[in-house]
Amino acid sequence: MNILVIGDIVGRPGRRAVKNILPAIQKEYDVIFTIANAENAAGGRGLSRSVMDELLNCNIDVLTMGNHVWDNKEINTFIDDEPRLIRPANYPPYCPGQGYHIYNAGFGVKIAVVNLSGRVFLPSLDCPFRTMEEILKDIKDKADIIIVDFHAEATSEKLAFAYYFDGRVTAILGTHTHVQTADERILPGGTAYITDLGMTGPYDSILGMEKSSVIEKFLTQRPTRFEVAGGPAQFQGALLRVDDNTHKALSINRISHMLND
Amino acid sequence: MNILVIGDIVGRPGRRAVKNILPAIQKEYDVIFTIANAENAAGGRGLSRSVMDELLNCNIDVLTMGNHVWDNKEINTFIDDEPRLIRPANYPPYCPGQGYHIYNAGFGVKIAVVNLSGRVFLPSLDCPFRTMEEILKDIKDKADIIIVDFHAEATSEKLAFAYYFDGRVTAILGTHTHVQTADERILPGGTAYITDLGMTGPYDSILGMEKSSVIEKFLTQRPTRFEVAGGPAQFQGALLRVDDNTHKALSINRISHMLND
Amino acid sequence: MNILVIGDIVGRPGRRAVKNILPAIQKEYDVIFTIANAENAAGGRGLSRSVMDELLNCNIDVLTMGNHVWDNKEINTFIDDEPRLIRPANYPPYCPGQGYHIYNAGFGVKIAVVNLSGRVFLPSLDCPFRTMEEILKDIKDKADIIIVDFHAEATSEKLAFAYYFDGRVTAILGTHTHVQTADERILPGGTAYITDLGMTGPYDSILGMEKSSVIEKFLTQRPTRFEVAGGPAQFQGALLRVDDNTHKALSINRISHMLND
Amino acid sequence: MNILVIGDIVGRPGRRAVKNILPAIQKEYDVIFTIANAENAAGGRGLSRSVMDELLNCNIDVLTMGNHVWDNKEINTFIDDEPRLIRPANYPPYCPGQGYHIYNAGFGVKIAVVNLSGRVFLPSLDCPFRTMEEILKDIKDKADIIIVDFHAEATSEKLAFAYYFDGRVTAILGTHTHVQTADERILPGGTAYITDLGMTGPYDSILGMEKSSVIEKFLTQRPTRFEVAGGPAQFQGALLRVDDNTHKALSINRISHMLND
Ligand SMILES: [Fe+2]
Ligand SMILES: [Fe+2]
Ligand SMILES: [Fe+2]
Ligand SMILES: [Fe+2]
Ligand SMILES: [Fe+2]
Ligand SMILES: [Fe+2]
Ligand SMILES: [Fe+2]
Ligand SMILES: [Fe+2]
Repeated sequence: MNILVIGDIVGRPGRRAVKNILPAIQKEYDVIFTIANAENAAGGRGLSRSVMDELLNCNIDVLTMGNHVWDNKEINTFIDDEPRLIRPANYPPYCPGQGYHIYNAGFGVKIAVVNLSGRVFLPSLDCPFRTMEEILKDIKDKADIIIVDFHAEATSEKLAFAYYFDGRVTAILGTHTHVQTADERILPGGTAYITDLGMTGPYDSILGMEKSSVIEKFLTQRPTRFEVAGGPAQFQGALLRVDDNTHKALSINRISHMLND
Repeated sequence: MNILVIGDIVGRPGRRAVKNILPAIQKEYDVIFTIANAENAAGGRGLSRSVMDELLNCNIDVLTMGNHVWDNKEINTFIDDEPRLIRPANYPPYCPGQGYHIYNAGFGVKIAVVNLSGRVFLPSLDCPFRTMEEILKDIKDKADIIIVDFHAEATSEKLAFAYYFDGRVTAILGTHTHVQTADERILPGGTAYITDLGMTGPYDSILGMEKSSVIEKFLTQRPTRFEVAGGPAQFQGALLRVDDNTHKALSINRISHMLND
Repeated sequence: MNILVIGDIVGRPGRRAVKNILPAIQKEYDVIFTIANAENAAGGRGLSRSVMDELLNCNIDVLTMGNHVWDNKEINTFIDDEPRLIRPANYPPYCPGQGYHIYNAGFGVKIAVVNLSGRVFLPSLDCPFRTMEEILKDIKDKADIIIVDFHAEATSEKLAFAYYFDGRVTAILGTHTHVQTADERILPGGTAYITDLGMTGPYDSILGMEKSSVIEKFLTQRPTRFEVAGGPAQFQGALLRVDDNTHKALSINRISHMLND
Repeated sequence: MNILVIGDIVGRPGRRAVKNILPAIQKEYDVIFTIANAENAAGGRGLSRSVMDELLNCNIDVLTMGNHVWDNKEINTFIDDEPRLIRPANYPPYCPGQGYHIYNAGFGVKIAVVNLSGRVFLPSLDCPFRTMEEILKDIKDKADIIIVDFHAEATSEKLAFAYYFDGRVTAILGTHTHVQTADERILPGGTAYITDLGMTGPYDSILGMEKSSVIEKFLTQRPTRFEVAGGPAQFQGALLRVDDNTHKALSINRISHMLND
């Protein structure tokens, strides 16, 4: 069976790419379950209720988040009510929302999706390794397939996490850098892995944001307001093929499409 | 004409991959000029004289460095004497070594190679944008081709640098994360770009280092000694095709090979 | 002659402390020149024109800034027009404003005031050491007294800067941590020094901000909006005694008063 | 009753200051219990067994540590065997050593000493707030007096921690910056507090280390080897006066002495 995981969706151009490209991909690859990172879906910063509804109506089964989860304060009004929305599980217990959930994917298959954040160059959250150990205790006997969106900056932390949990989860998919990496593979223990899924959003941009404002930030070292860029959009992620019977990862393939409209 | 740029060479396995794979690639693609990042070439940390000689004897024309340039103190004894060795140009003027150089590539072609470091999550060096502007004043009329190894962590800084100098240099090639990215392309202004060339070193490793020690570092948050990993090695980089007459970048292609021995 | 330097003024309570306490101190110590750090003067974040005018009307001669200089965007409309306002000199040249100025303090005395920012745990500005060397070339023969507000986080950077320029400037006064240090002294070369002048603002607070919101930030690791705290305010800084003839620093004394109203 | 807490002891000069000054202070103030931070006691980096023994023989009852706890690997051979040595309690459970202990101070008084590390600009340890809550559950009914060495960089984190636990512990004493702060006080809830105790070590130095090497580090941005400075040494800390019956903090006073030999 095929599972699709989509890299950080950025703003309106990213959502437009989802609407225009996702149906064809889901059909072409006979995708039974779709996960997307939505931490930048609303104007590049966080998630609003209307944007969440818009994405969930696009036949996406689960939305994951990252360090931008709290950027749009509206999320506090609905994050506790929507089981299809998860945020990094290693935020402190004082934070609303949930970090993982088990979904019924049809065909009698239960898929656990876990969202975690790295800590290198990111907020001082709880240890993602130990948090994952705790989550595994809960889900390992309840879920057939376990997918982790590991949202992190440093390649070393992503690889360390992947090798540490290799063989204990179905797939570990990196997000956050918005640049797709070319290292997708099945690790020795059987876990599918890629360091970063890439971004679904404006192509001619810096991580989805308007180039000139980001460049100005680097030139002046001043706080600068970034806006989502315009122009053509890309759609990026990875396709995971899982064995129907053993539920082991068979392959992972990068997806990268341009929306030409 | 074809130029080859090799991602961070890590330790003995990386050098072995160079020795075994480079000749065939240079021959297959008719490479006239080869650049390699050597900041991790000696035991994973910095560069020694014998390792430098070993690499330069492999038909590599220029060695670039990065934040690990000073890790092996031996470099202070030879960095000022070897024009084929450059380190990030934006280290303060108090540091030995040079940050760029113009090389005679044969066929009457002069290639300037510039090494710069980003500053996000890295030491507080001089502004790489302004340093590059200064260097351009010196080299733009002297060199036919300008290649920049931009050694940086954050994808935003790498892309901002690339878009800012797009059209003013032949190629900007990212190094440092040791994970090859899948975003190689010719930017709108004509500059060839990739966010990260990847790594030339142990395949089954974390950035070239032994996995268990890196994992231990993340689990314990204690200073941990890393050793270069063993096992099969990969060879990664990019091939740059440049027009013989206009000296403009025609294409950039990722290179990734496994050494099976 | 006596010079007064006031630590970071935070919001309305800080300005109220200035209005109520400064006149008595200036009179008691016969202060001829007063400098104050105003980076948090407007609502805890940056500076507005009305707040600047309010402070300059309190018989303050020079306002210095820090990493919060750009927080209130209004500053861009007046920073280039007011010579009594300076910001860290090591911001890139693309930024508006000036980093130092020479003031006529009366009695035929010229006082240069320089504002610089450290780089440890702060934005990647130009090297403060080299920037100060450049500024010294310009001012050392024009000014009788040189006062530096070195706005920095790390005690190591502040002390390194102080020892490096010891004997070449009259005083180096640290700001930014909002906690007054007990290490005021005349360094071996004759420069007066203190690691941090402290804060002029709400006493029962965390760096001037409402306690509960800052605590929530640490508990949740989420972005949290801070408001200036209420309650009684403190007035902190240091008094510098300078020899009338040699213009050398004779002493530096901490000032710390509570506004009881 | 009086308790003495000594700021980070740096190298041989710091230990010499302890040996020469501590006895007189303990006698003068009738000190019944002495705590000292020893993270820099052995050559400026960590702790060896002989240095630990040397300090414990100076009539120090408890040694606390900080981010430098693991710098001298020898500590791994004895940290689990010496109850008078504690390290930040919020290191992950995979680390050896203990983070708090209850001591019998004589007179029927039980003193709990807790060592914790902040996380701002420091390693990503467990949350110090939640770790302290857990420790309090264990000790609050067993100990008469609770003293916390909170080893942290950011003044905001130190103050947030202090206000959060104000009234629940006897004293919170900051360490790590090596510069004594002038903000000692009894907080509204009754907890004695100071942001930083200062340093016991070479006076004419940068945080106890040789000035020229630290300055070189800032000028060159290269890794630089620091050595403990020579010259006269200072002895810094704070004296805590605790009510004999209620065990509440009555006062906290800074201690700062120079060793003239
Ligand atoms: Fe993102
Ligand atoms: Fe992110
Ligand atoms: Fe590297
Ligand atoms: Fe590097
Ligand atoms: Fe401030
Ligand atoms: Fe500041
Ligand atoms: Fe220390
Ligand atoms: Fe420390």
